[in-house]
Amino acid sequence: MTSLFARTLREDPAEAEVASHKLLVRAAFIRRAAPGIYSWLPLGMRVKAKIEAIVREEMEAIGAQEVHFPALLPREPYEASGRWDDYGPLLFRLKDRKDADYLLAPTHEEMFTLLVKDLYSSYKDLPVSLFQIQTKYRDEARPRAGLLRGREFDMKDSYSFDIDDAGLEVSYQAHRQAYERIFTRLGLEYVIVSAMSGAMGGSRSEEFLCPTPIGEDTFVRSPGGYTANVEAVTTPVPEPLDYSDAPAAVVEDTPDSATIENLVEVANRVRPRADRPWTAADTLKNVVLTLSHPGGERELIVVGLPGDREVDLKRLEAAVAPAEAIAATDEDFAANPELVRGYIGPGVLGPQGPQTVDERTGETRSAIRYLLDPRVVEGTRWITGADVEGKHVFDLVMGRDFRADGTIEAAEVRAGDPAPDGSGPLELARGVEMGHVFQLGQLYAEALGLKVLDQNGKAVTVTMGSYGFGITRAVAQIAETNHDDRGLVWPLNIAPAHVHVLATGKGTEIFETAASLAAALEAQGVEVLYDDRPKVSAGVKFADAELIGIPYGLVVGRGLAESVVEIRNRRTGEREEVAPEAAVARLVELIGSAGR
Amino acid sequence: MTSLFARTLREDPAEAEVASHKLLVRAAFIRRAAPGIYSWLPLGMRVKAKIEAIVREEMEAIGAQEVHFPALLPREPYEASGRWDDYGPLLFRLKDRKDADYLLAPTHEEMFTLLVKDLYSSYKDLPVSLFQIQTKYRDEARPRAGLLRGREFDMKDSYSFDIDDAGLEVSYQAHRQAYERIFTRLGLEYVIVSAMSGAMGGSRSEEFLCPTPIGEDTFVRSPGGYTANVEAVTTPVPEPLDYSDAPAAVVEDTPDSATIENLVEVANRVRPRADRPWTAADTLKNVVLTLSHPGGERELIVVGLPGDREVDLKRLEAAVAPAEAIAATDEDFAANPELVRGYIGPGVLGPQGPQTVDERTGETRSAIRYLLDPRVVEGTRWITGADVEGKHVFDLVMGRDFRADGTIEAAEVRAGDPAPDGSGPLELARGVEMGHVFQLGQLYAEALGLKVLDQNGKAVTVTMGSYGFGITRAVAQIAETNHDDRGLVWPLNIAPAHVHVLATGKGTEIFETAASLAAALEAQGVEVLYDDRPKVSAGVKFADAELIGIPYGLVVGRGLAESVVEIRNRRTGEREEVAPEAAVARLVELIGSAGR
Repeated sequence: MTSLFARTLREDPAEAEVASHKLLVRAAFIRRAAPGIYSWLPLGMRVKAKIEAIVREEMEAIGAQEVHFPALLPREPYEASGRWDDYGPLLFRLKDRKDADYLLAPTHEEMFTLLVKDLYSSYKDLPVSLFQIQTKYRDEARPRAGLLRGREFDMKDSYSFDIDDAGLEVSYQAHRQAYERIFTRLGLEYVIVSAMSGAMGGSRSEEFLCPTPIGEDTFVRSPGGYTANVEAVTTPVPEPLDYSDAPAAVVEDTPDSATIENLVEVANRVRPRADRPWTAADTLKNVVLTLSHPGGERELIVVGLPGDREVDLKRLEAAVAPAEAIAATDEDFAANPELVRGYIGPGVLGPQGPQTVDERTGETRSAIRYLLDPRVVEGTRWITGADVEGKHVFDLVMGRDFRADGTIEAAEVRAGDPAPDGSGPLELARGVEMGHVFQLGQLYAEALGLKVLDQNGKAVTVTMGSYGFGITRAVAQIAETNHDDRGLVWPLNIAPAHVHVLATGKGTEIFETAASLAAALEAQGVEVLYDDRPKVSAGVKFADAELIGIPYGLVVGRGLAESVVEIRNRRTGEREEVAPEAAVARLVELIGSAGR
Repeated sequence: MTSLFARTLREDPAEAEVASHKLLVRAAFIRRAAPGIYSWLPLGMRVKAKIEAIVREEMEAIGAQEVHFPALLPREPYEASGRWDDYGPLLFRLKDRKDADYLLAPTHEEMFTLLVKDLYSSYKDLPVSLFQIQTKYRDEARPRAGLLRGREFDMKDSYSFDIDDAGLEVSYQAHRQAYERIFTRLGLEYVIVSAMSGAMGGSRSEEFLCPTPIGEDTFVRSPGGYTANVEAVTTPVPEPLDYSDAPAAVVEDTPDSATIENLVEVANRVRPRADRPWTAADTLKNVVLTLSHPGGERELIVVGLPGDREVDLKRLEAAVAPAEAIAATDEDFAANPELVRGYIGPGVLGPQGPQTVDERTGETRSAIRYLLDPRVVEGTRWITGADVEGKHVFDLVMGRDFRADGTIEAAEVRAGDPAPDGSGPLELARGVEMGHVFQLGQLYAEALGLKVLDQNGKAVTVTMGSYGFGITRAVAQIAETNHDDRGLVWPLNIAPAHVHVLATGKGTEIFETAASLAAALEAQGVEVLYDDRPKVSAGVKFADAELIGIPYGLVVGRGLAESVVEIRNRRTGEREEVAPEAAVARLVELIGSAGR
């Protein structure tokens, strides 16, 4: 400790919000270099290296081979795949001295595809799985929670290449199982959930989420075992209703009813229902949004959904990816005067609204695309805007009085909603995305021309999978789930050391005994951090040890006069007194082979 | 080999000029991703990892602690040190989504300084040495020679922090000696030469050069042991000459003498010398150059040097760093009509030329700065331009007839020139810069405010050293110096494997024996690459093995029928026949402990 490059802090760093961030900075594992960009100190380096070693072992165990790609990459391959644009502002872009476009890679599908294309040409070369442990870059709009969402971070990314879908399934399952072993070895609780593929494209993907209240992802699970990221939850579509005896739609004056809450109150007053009062679920809310497409094109759309639900922007964006969605602005409303704020109804939207000729396709289409929540099926009856200030229409029947351009999964998912597979009501929880496995299929191979000759000499497009694991994020999440109010509590196999030897007291005998015990432990293969600071109080040494969180402490102090040293278990708090000559054997026994 | 992600190439890649580049690509160690930017295949990864491990061991042996900084860094620290501008186009610059300036770090002095400032505050914390193995970025104008001069590459960089110069000297020597051990362990021949510090700043630096004809650096050595990068060679300054009886200067018509060669011929005709003919060394050549300063400012200067020497642009740039020097353009001459091309003399230059008032300092100075080679001392007599077309002046005496604004080390160094320390005539050779050690002194600590309290409680500025070693470049240089016309010849301790087992032939017995020998070797800790390709000819397997360059081959082929397998030494070509059951023990003996 006299030479270790580390200084613990008593105070939480000002910008830190979550426990892992506070503690990793205070215990001198990391320091911030810029927003979302961190430097690693010696203690942090050791933890990260141990996690990398575990990930590397499990990747090699399934036959994946390690390679390494540059982080600085030319634009062209990402242009070919469409991601140069699709990534939008998430991508760090730059130019070299010759004005050529480059990017800092957020992930490497394109480069792996091109490398396999460069080297391989036959079905006999497949399958192959490649991985790298590498620095990635994403220009997050809101880097937060320390290492949990950074802009420069380390990932293990791997890619599988197979001749057909059956092969992909095998590679995918091998990776999925390797991930399960990695999570288990890292002591990370996890849930595997169905996910949207987002900017990755591809046909099927699952996320490995670590449940935690500070997570940015929301996921659902049902009693019957359905799990999904909330963005991937599909709404069970009700059967269409018979509307043959539905009353005709009627427009009513509904002054001051621009909010759903007011509308329900007014509706119950101006046109009360016989059997029960109107509720928000009887209203059809039409939400105006602007999509920002990768090419820069903006498109106004309207989402219609039951008035008791809000639009979930993350679900909406997952549904319209790679476009980004933002709330419509005053300018948008000014440019579309048919949209009467607070009173927007289907009358001016979608097929029943103004039509226009699409510049690109030449086909006639709705001037304002109208997309409905899947619950708004044919035959359902609604109170909704009449497109006139202060007026709503009652008993407007979907399929009879209006139609839409399609459906969209944009409504919030709520606890108690039914699972799409009928496995019961959903429960919601939050998690951190630690891993993501994708069945990419032929998306990238097609875009970049990766084909091999099959057994009949025919060129076939290769089928790919892509698999990511957040190394940096794992450090944070392990800290997040392994701490108490005094500091970090590292699992033995990824702790920066196994034993923290503390010399507490003033006699030279204490320091000599502590030093020789530290040396004896190291001779047995035990990793030791020795607090040899001569003029630091026992209290400060204990506090630092608890903050740093090494699993076992060996305290050589006043007890030495009675031939006693103390072994402390950081996690349980248990203390055990042993004779100095028995300490090494006892610690080796406690540590076992697990930590070494 | 059936599963290894590698494909050897029979043809050299089109863009490759040097052997290491050709062979590393052909043998499937690396592939080009963009100019000066490479991807690493599994074989290359293994070599790089072994080099990293050696460097890491030697750094830890001198007590340096491993940390890791981001590659993507904010502008501010580099602005404070002046290097945001000084690096010029070498620096990759970019903006984030909030329009903040970032760079891809070419080296990390600033960040290390700030980190030590963040953690440490007392002389008791020092000395400390920190290192990282990290990806670096430099936007080279001419990336070349494969990994030898790339734009994204791995370096080990370390930094020492001491309370005073005596401490720095100790840290510097420790690093210097660690570097010597690294070069020895990597089998790299090296020369330690005095160097210019360039954009690094600081007071003293030495380079570790690997001598090679393809090197970009030129260095000198003398019989007495003087060594220096040619940029750092200082010219021994002659004593001033007595010019009391020198004849008066005379202007002569010298038509068609705009080149030195013509001038010498004309001079010997129009004003022959009694004792010997004039030579180019009697002429004073005045070379017009433009400096481009980091802020964008351009400055015209004239360098005066004996006519038998050329200006060495690299020496000139080292002398004027961080400015860049380029030849003067037609526009420059048009703007300065007093400069008569081919006939430029001191008359219009420096103190005897037009004077101007410096905008920044308000002081009067020469309109055209005139800098002389150190050999042009007071009392020397010259034939030089008369600043009139077709005329030169003879017997122009330095100190009597003209003066300059200063001297500059810009003339080429030639074999036979005297060493500045009197240790004999210099010999020139070329080398690759593999390491560079700097005594930075207080340059960065001052710019970034790194002070600690000394024993008397007084704040003192910390003294720093910085030490770089090119990991990527080492892979290339080891390949460059370890190959023959058939392929690579790796030293045992950094080879991708120790033994290349080759099954050559068709019998299942051959493949079974080869596989069991490979497994037996691995059980002994020997690293094996097993060529198990079933339908590949012996000739192709031998060619691939020689191209890849693993130190030992174990050939299991037709000889097996007579209970014989063959051990081959890739470097010496020696072959040895042994019984299959003796092969493992023999290989273990040959490999010894060196490779493991």
